This record gives sequence, structure tokens and C-alpha cells, in this order.
Amino acid sequence: MPVMDEQGQIQIHTENIFPIIKKAVYSGHEVFLRELVSNGVDAISKRRMAAMAGDCSEGEDGVIRITVDREAKTLTIADNGIGMTADEVKRYINQVAFSSAEDFLEKYKQEGDAIIGHFGLGFYSSFMVAEQVELVTRSARPDSEAVRWSCDGSPNFSLSSAERDQPGTDVILTLMEEELEYIEPARIRTLINTYCDFMAVPVQLEGETVNKMNAPWRKSARELTDKDYIDLYNYLYPFQGDPLLWVHLNTDYPYNLQGILFFPKQTGRADWEKGEIKLYCNQVFVSDSIKEVVPRYLLPLRGVLDSPDIPLNVSRSALQTDRRVRSIGNFVAKKVADRLRNVKKDDPTAYAEAWESLAPFVKIGAMEDDKFADQVAELILFATSASAADGDTPDPISTGDRAFTTLEGYRSRLDSNNDKRILYSTDDVAQAGALNLWTSQGMEVLKLETVIDTQFIPWLEQRHEDLTFQRVDAELDDSLKDIDAEITDQDGTTESDRLRDLIKTALSNDKVTVQVQALKAEGAPPAMILLPEQMRRLNDMGALMEQRLPGLPDHHVLLVNKRHPLVEGMLKLKAGSVLIGDAQSSPTEALAQDIARHVYDMARLGVGGLEPNELSGFQTRSAELMGTLMQRGM
Amino acid sequence: MPVMDEQGQIQIHTENIFPIIKKAVYSGHEVFLRELVSNGVDAISKRRMAAMAGDCSEGEDGVIRITVDREAKTLTIADNGIGMTADEVKRYINQVAFSSAEDFLEKYKQEGDAIIGHFGLGFYSSFMVAEQVELVTRSARPDSEAVRWSCDGSPNFSLSSAERDQPGTDVILTLMEEELEYIEPARIRTLINTYCDFMAVPVQLEGETVNKMNAPWRKSARELTDKDYIDLYNYLYPFQGDPLLWVHLNTDYPYNLQGILFFPKQTGRADWEKGEIKLYCNQVFVSDSIKEVVPRYLLPLRGVLDSPDIPLNVSRSALQTDRRVRSIGNFVAKKVADRLRNVKKDDPTAYAEAWESLAPFVKIGAMEDDKFADQVAELILFATSASAADGDTPDPISTGDRAFTTLEGYRSRLDSNNDKRILYSTDDVAQAGALNLWTSQGMEVLKLETVIDTQFIPWLEQRHEDLTFQRVDAELDDSLKDIDAEITDQDGTTESDRLRDLIKTALSNDKVTVQVQALKAEGAPPAMILLPEQMRRLNDMGALMEQRLPGLPDHHVLLVNKRHPLVEGMLKLKAGSVLIGDAQSSPTEALAQDIARHVYDMARLGVGGLEPNELSGFQTRSAELMGTLMQRGM
Repeated sequence: MPVMDEQGQIQIHTENIFPIIKKAVYSGHEVFLRELVSNGVDAISKRRMAAMAGDCSEGEDGVIRITVDREAKTLTIADNGIGMTADEVKRYINQVAFSSAEDFLEKYKQEGDAIIGHFGLGFYSSFMVAEQVELVTRSARPDSEAVRWSCDGSPNFSLSSAERDQPGTDVILTLMEEELEYIEPARIRTLINTYCDFMAVPVQLEGETVNKMNAPWRKSARELTDKDYIDLYNYLYPFQGDPLLWVHLNTDYPYNLQGILFFPKQTGRADWEKGEIKLYCNQVFVSDSIKEVVPRYLLPLRGVLDSPDIPLNVSRSALQTDRRVRSIGNFVAKKVADRLRNVKKDDPTAYAEAWESLAPFVKIGAMEDDKFADQVAELILFATSASAADGDTPDPISTGDRAFTTLEGYRSRLDSNNDKRILYSTDDVAQAGALNLWTSQGMEVLKLETVIDTQFIPWLEQRHEDLTFQRVDAELDDSLKDIDAEITDQDGTTESDRLRDLIKTALSNDKVTVQVQALKAEGAPPAMILLPEQMRRLNDMGALMEQRLPGLPDHHVLLVNKRHPLVEGMLKLKAGSVLIGDAQSSPTEALAQDIARHVYDMARLGVGGLEPNELSGFQTRSAELMGTLMQRGM
Repeated sequence: MPVMDEQGQIQIHTENIFPIIKKAVYSGHEVFLRELVSNGVDAISKRRMAAMAGDCSEGEDGVIRITVDREAKTLTIADNGIGMTADEVKRYINQVAFSSAEDFLEKYKQEGDAIIGHFGLGFYSSFMVAEQVELVTRSARPDSEAVRWSCDGSPNFSLSSAERDQPGTDVILTLMEEELEYIEPARIRTLINTYCDFMAVPVQLEGETVNKMNAPWRKSARELTDKDYIDLYNYLYPFQGDPLLWVHLNTDYPYNLQGILFFPKQTGRADWEKGEIKLYCNQVFVSDSIKEVVPRYLLPLRGVLDSPDIPLNVSRSALQTDRRVRSIGNFVAKKVADRLRNVKKDDPTAYAEAWESLAPFVKIGAMEDDKFADQVAELILFATSASAADGDTPDPISTGDRAFTTLEGYRSRLDSNNDKRILYSTDDVAQAGALNLWTSQGMEVLKLETVIDTQFIPWLEQRHEDLTFQRVDAELDDSLKDIDAEITDQDGTTESDRLRDLIKTALSNDKVTVQVQALKAEGAPPAMILLPEQMRRLNDMGALMEQRLPGLPDHHVLLVNKRHPLVEGMLKLKAGSVLIGDAQSSPTEALAQDIARHVYDMARLGVGGLEPNELSGFQTRSAELMGTLMQRGM
């Protein structure tokens, strides 16, 4: 039989939803304690607000007392807050999900007061662990009498009159057998320290206050000293050293958000996956890892964000990721950039000293987020081979042992004929030879030494289309070489030609291009490996993607320094063997070739291009070669 | 006024809880589609069960059809399942959280049928994205008429008669402005592929079936070929190569659990933090990373676990981690060990070939879980320097290019006088010298080459208290040395004494102990570094904890091979300088010392003990030394 045009209201029956609220809304049993303590703190706030309005007695300072009774298997959470009359118990307890928070705030709203509970479900989380829940409560309003409410987890309750000297509420849980872990003081203490540490009311366990209470991020930055920040960091992240910098967030609009974010000193081991910022909601701990709230590049920051406006689900286990959350993330990123700009302006040296720890955030952030890239454009520093000017020039910034410059600063010092090529090195040690050739001729070289720079350099080139970056060992300028006329033999070959031939024969590897030059710098090595820029970058990127060290590309240039005694000697040996008319097979020819190979191996060793499996052969050959040279001299 | 002894039932009013269900129970808006498709699949299952019992018409094959209407901003999810009468709509839709699943299963339970919905809340998740939800439904029971139900998200609904040709249910969502992403077919397709891919009913988007349907893990292992497993792996983890091994789980007791777990081939990049196993509940995707369900050491496994008995919260976003979950984890670990034992028994060569990929799981598992350690005790292999016997001896197992043994197998081949010392190497290349000294004298050496082995070796020693492990370069046996009587000079010193003095003077480093020996093996190097076992282990562990490469401990032994020509030559140079009576400052004495330092640097280079910042100096000194030796021979 059809029903025609019926109107009605959707019904929710307690017997259906109550089991879900008890069992399936919350994600872990332990949160019952957070919920009950939060309710207690709310009751204390409400009493304070009502007392200010003259609606109830003020009472002693708010406190939450937790006690256990092992024999009775009960855990009691008692507050001295506003309490409830029998009517209020009927309204708030017997009606699940009827939160009084909004009405209450409207009536009594004071600056700085906040009510934690919103859903009106928290109390029922106690049924996750208790087979019996009892309330003994007395309202702080005049002439109130105490009542006792009791429920065994079925939807049935009983209500009767009770005794309670002072206003407030006791929640008495009779724990289930399988939840008796929550009667252990050590366990309770851990839970309070986790969830309730920064709540504004003392939480006492068997007479002793367990929580820290003071939540510095709720104060204004003016009220806090550097030590306050450092202490908070050391408390939240023990044994991690002091923080590098911090950002204090405190805003009411467009959302209510407080927080303190720290840049840790050690970014080498930073976790870019997990996130270590702690999320609080009205000083109640929610989550340890809030990768949804801050942009990925800020994940290794540490500290606290506290906002009632970050949307959480009932169990507070999951964020409702929506537009508002994304917008909070952008806000945090902007505040971080603002803070860095101020540090750089107020104390450039301190900023430069912190730069190496800041660089990963700033560089990755710039690459991942165009808005952030604009915000930090002038905050990106580069370690440079230039030394800080004696005068008061603002660039380079000296930190004592190093000097830092901006891209603008570097360009301003370039020869105006040649202001488009940025020289850089990635490894002072492995590229020492090439680096020295440039710097000894007065050229400034930037140090771009981290893994991130492999991606950051192309990004910079894309952003500054008129610039190209070139590593010191990509190719050498004529300015680094002694260009002299060479004597040409009667057969039209020069010394360099003969040297090149000797080495090419010795290496017998078409992928290696041999260049012979006379290098200007003192102590220049017998040979060095040069890697053309674009080819080397491809090789580096491939290695990065495969998470291996880049190694030496097959195609590379061996630059031989014909001024080095070893190279000169090699050529003499070769000449000797030619003179005795036995060029290809004489012992001196063979020795010259052994030396050529050794020189090449040594050059490869310097750039990490000698594979481990070649090392053993290199050692053996080198020991033999040296033995032979020695014998010749005996 | 006190209330005396009142009894009653806790009430939940729709206007309070409905907003929570709509907004705060689920953790992400997109899951509404999973919930509605799941409801449709359930309706189709129910129709099949009821039809089998003759209670309703059978209809065509079950199908879920999704259509969009951009203009009307509606998304429709239609099924041809059991449908609802007006009375059923009132019971199931107008009463939130009244799940019919249990009653229905009790009445119609068939082998293999399952109903996804349990909480009775899923339907209301549609209000997260829709401003208006309409149902047009017709029951498959005889003589049913269609009804239309409509609700704008307030608890008010309207019900009227409607037209629908066939039994089934249409859910018509009028999307909110800010949720219009769900009208895009590409977005819907992604959601179906994520959540509904393996549901047993075709899900059609605008006429085309989008989901894969076939869930191989619900079949028995007998019904599946190797190709079926490999195809599933490649489907779930594309571009990752084929899996190495798999474990098919299928049990009803003590919990209902199906699944297929894969060992990936590449464990080098395995993620030990995140977990890549996908969790399903009755073929509905729940989560990508279920680190709570399997023990940590199995986290890099991949594949699927499907169990209605894994307790989830309503939004399925969080696991209720309880005893049951832990027990499922132990069960999975045992099944994995069982599978490995069978592979080793049935095909030892295949097992040995897979060993290097299996080793991280097995070794970490054994160290972390005593029960698992017992289960895999005989499954732990070691690559060995021994070659597989020609005959049919089961140990070592040859895989063509390598040989593997168990600890028992190794011990059975030891000299019975010396069966407590296990020789091992950690790097064939860096320890080539020492390794060769042992193997050339017929000793068997195990290869323990991974980072995990740094912890695994001490763990093995603790488990087998009668054994000690010693790396090949810890110390040398007398069997490896030529022990000959040395000629003693008139002043009572031997050649070895003079050599030791020369080198100690050259190095001038008290932390280096110099030993002089004549080494037996052909091609033995001029010198090698020895590292006493316990000292080296401390160094390795320290490096592991600080996440750096171990480097060379400051205290080490330099073993000099007096048979090497370079060492012999060095001593002759020294003797020459003594003869001309100018021991401490002659050019030959200085040259001998340069060679001694070079020999030491080369030995350090071989064990990675030459720091990058020493390398450049080494290269320069080496080039100079060689130049000098060359000049002497000209």
C-alpha cells in the first residue's frame, strides 16, 4: 500500500546509536581520560564565568583530582567546577550529544575563555573502558543539592539524591576487567602528560599535580623571553639541543590560531615524511604528526599549533581536510617567511650562521610553492669563496669562518662582460684542484654542496632565465691556462700531441677525451677530470632518482697538466724509448704507459670515480709501479 | 528540589546527533561514494539471498550505475538490489543507525555471502557533500510499489509514491556548490578505483564498468595460477617488477581473514616505517598503510589483507588497536614463516636465490620477535666462500654464481679443533686482501655484507653462546704467515725490527700498531690494515647509531708484508742511508719514510680509511713521490 506525501522527522533511537558511540566513534580507548579531564576543565571555566556574572559561588582555585581504588576497580575524576543540578543532569547527561557549550559561551563569553567540548559525546567515551559509570555532582548555583547518576552502559540510567560537600562533579568509573591498565598510576600519569599537559587547570593524581599547565603559546610574544622558548623546545623535544629560531603565531583572524614553531638545529636528519609539529585544540593534545596542516616543506619544523578552528572529527583522530586547513597552511608558511626576513634584516650575521640549517626548508619550499618562492626570494644565501669586505658593505656577510652572499650580491661583483655565468662548486675537497685554479685567478665561486642543490640549480636557472650555472670542473677558461707557443717537431707534432697520443694509447678508452694544458696555479695536480656541465647534471639527476651516488660519467675529459714533473718525466721516458727505436714494446714505453694509467686513476680517485672493485687493482698496480721506479733508481 | 530514585533511558535527539553524523564522524568527504556503493552492493547481495529463499524476484545480474547531470548538479548511484518498501524506508532510512545487517544475515545466511554495512550510518555520509538527498526505491518483494524519500539535511524528510520500473534503489545527490568536484567523471572514476575496485558487483560510470571486481584473495590458492598472483601484484604495485614470493592467507578461525602478501624483489628501498599492505574489509578498500596490523618487520611486504574481523571505527579511518589486532599480526607472521619453510624444503635453490631479498625481513624479524626467531631458525642462510659440492650434498646450496649455507652447514665443515670461530667478511672488495689470505689457505668465509648484519652478528652470538664471529681482517692465523727464522744483526736487531722502526718513525702515530710479517699468498699487498674484532664492532655500532659510515677506528694495526718488492726496496733505501752514515736526515732516509707513509695511505685507502680531506694531500704527495723516484732512475 503506497504512502502518500508523508512528512516527518528522521529518528535516531538510543539503542541503535549508543553502541556505536561507545565502541566505534573513538579510535583508541585511552582517550576517555582526555575527554573526562577536558569536561572537568570546562566545568571549572564555566564556574569562573558564571561566578563573574554573580550567578554562582566562586569557590577555591579550580583543580582536577584523579584517584584510584584498586579493590573496587574504580577510577575517579573529580572537578570543583560548576557542577550540575538534577535538571542539568537530565538535560546534559541523559541527552547524548547535547552540548551546552555554545549557549553557555553566548551568555558568559569572557575574553580568553574557551570551552573544549563541542560535540557533547566525550562523556560517553568512558563506556569504552567502564562497565559502570557513576556521577556524583552538585551545582555551584545557590541552594543546589547533590545528585547521583549511574549507568551500566545500557541506555538505562538511575538518578538519586546524594551527598557532596562542595560544588563540582565526580565521575567514578568501574573499569572492565580487560581495561584494568587504567588503574595503574604510571599509565594514568603518561596519559595526562600526553593529552593534558598544557591544560590550564592542575590535574592531580593522588594528591600530586602531574601536568605542566603553562602553555606559553597562549601568551603574547612580548611576555616571553628567549629562555621561555628554549625551555619549551627542550621540554617537548628533549635531548635535541636548542632550537635555531622560532616563530610565534598568534592570530584571531581569519582563524583563531596560536602556536610556536621551531627550526631545529640539525636538519640533516630531518623527517620530511612524518611531521613533528604537535597539534593542540584549546591546549588539549590532539596529534603528534599533522602533515595535513603545514605544507610539506615545513614538516621538519617542530613545535605546537593550537587552534579550535582546525576541523577535527569526533574522535579527534582525523583532520577534516578542507579549504580552511589548506589556508591555515599558507598562513603558517607566510609567517615563517616573515620571521626569516626580520631575522635577516635585524641581524644578518645570525641569519647567515643559521642559513645552512634553514636552507633545506627555504629551498624546497621555494621549489614547491610559488607564493613562498616570492616571499623568500631575497632570503636565499649562498656560501661563497669571496671574503667579506673589510668595510661596511652588506654583502658578502661574514660569519667568521665563512662568507655568504645573495645571488644579487654575487652578480654585482661579476665583470660586466661576463655577468651571466655563475661559478659554483659542490665539494671543496673533491673539486679542490679545479676550485683552486679559479680562485687563484681571483674568480668568486659559490658553494652549492647539498643534495637539494642538484634540483635547486636548474630551478634557479628557470627562474632567472638570463643566468647559467657552471661547476668549476666543467671547463676551464683561457685565463686559467698558460698559453705559450709550442715547438713543433720536424714531423709537425708538438710535445702536447705526443703526450696526448701516449695517454690515449695507455687508456685505450674512446669515451675519455684527453686535453693537454699548462696550468697556471702553483701545486696544480698532474691531471684532473673535467665534466661538461649539462652531461654531468644528467648524470647527477639519474643518480638522485635511483638513490645512488652519482659516480663518474663514462664520457669525461682528462685534462693533463704538462707542467707537472711526473708528466714531464713520463714524456722523457717515452722520448727515450723512441730514441732507442723500440717505441711500442720497450720497457720504458710500457713504464710511461703505466704512469699514464696511474695518473688517470689518481685523477679519478679524486672525483670519486674509482669504483670499489677497481680500487684493489689500482692499489696493486700502483705498488708495482712504485717498486719498478724504485728499482730503476737503485 | 531533589529528585528521588528516578529511573529512565538515556535519550539521543536527532537534532543534536544528526549534525555530528553529517560532519564529524567521517574523516574525509570523499568516502560518501564508498559508503553509497557499499550500500548498493549490500542491497544486491540481499536480493540474491532473498531470491534463493523464494522471497523475491531474482532480476538481472547485479549492477551499480553511476550517472551525473551537470546542469542539475546531481550525482545518482543506482542499484538493482532488493530495494525498499515504504515501511522499510521508514525503518531503515528514517531511523539512523538501525542496521538491518545482522537480522538479515541470520535469516538468509549463505556460504560466502557477506554484508558490508554494520553501523547503519553510511547513508548519512551523503550529507557531507549533498544539500539534498533523494531516494527512489522499489522493493523486489512481490507487489511492491516505488516510493520517493527526500531530505535537505535537516532532520525533516518527506515521503511520497513514485515510479520505478524495476526493483532497486536510486540515491540522487544534489551536490553542494563547494563539493562540485564529485560531479567530474575523472574524480568519480578515481574514487571507484580506490575504494570499490575489488567489490564483487560491476560499478558502471555512464555505462562503462570501472572496477576490476575479481578479488583473487577471496578464492582458494588452488584456483589461482602463478600468473594470477603476479598479475595482482603488478596491478596493485605497477612498475615495481614481479614479486619474489607470496603467501596466500585464507582462514575462518580464530578470525575470518583472507589475503595475499607479496615479498617485493627490491628490498633495498623497502619502507620500514610506512607499510604498503592494503587493508580491505569485505573487498572494500579501507587503508593503504596498516602498520598496526602486521609486525614492524613485515611492513615492507606488500599485498592485501581483507578481514571483517579487524575492528574499525565508523569512518573506517582508524583501527581500534586491541588484542585481536595483535593476534592477527602474530598469525600473519607465522604464516609467512610457514611459507618460507615450504619454499626452502621444496626448492632450496629458488630459496637461496631469493635469500638476499628475504634476509632483511627474516633477520630483523628474528631479532625483534622471539617466536618468529624460533620459526625461522633453520631458514637463515649465509652466502659463503665455499663452493657447492659436486655431489648431492644439500649444503652449501649453489645458485650458479653464489653458494649459500646455514650456520649448521658451516659448522659441520669446520675443523673439529676449531669449530667455534666463524669467519666472515663484510666487503669482498675492501677486504679482498685479507679474504684472499684465508681462502687461499682453504678456509671457508661467510659473507655478512648488509647493514643489518652489524646487529645480527652479536644477536647470533647471544643465541649461540658457544660461537664467536671474527671478521677476516680482525687478525691473521699463523697458518697464513711464513714463519722463518730471521737473521739477527750484530746489534741484535732483525730486518723486521728495522722495518718496524722505519715505519713507526714515518707515521709518528702511537695509535697505529705496526706488525711485520711475510705473507704466504701470491700477490699479497705491501701492507694491510687489521682491525681487532671487538674494537671494530664498537666503532661500527657507534657509526650506525650516528647514521654515518663507520670509517677507520683511530686505533688499528698496520700489517706490513716484508716480502713485497716495495717494502724490500724501502728497507734497502734505509740501509743505504745508514751505510753513508746520515740516518736521520739523508734524502734516501726521507724517501724511505715517504714510501712508508704512501704504503700506509694506500692500505687505508683500501678500507675506506682515507678521509676525503686527506685525499687531496695523498694525491699531491703520491704524485711528488713518484716524480722523485722517476728522476732517480733517469
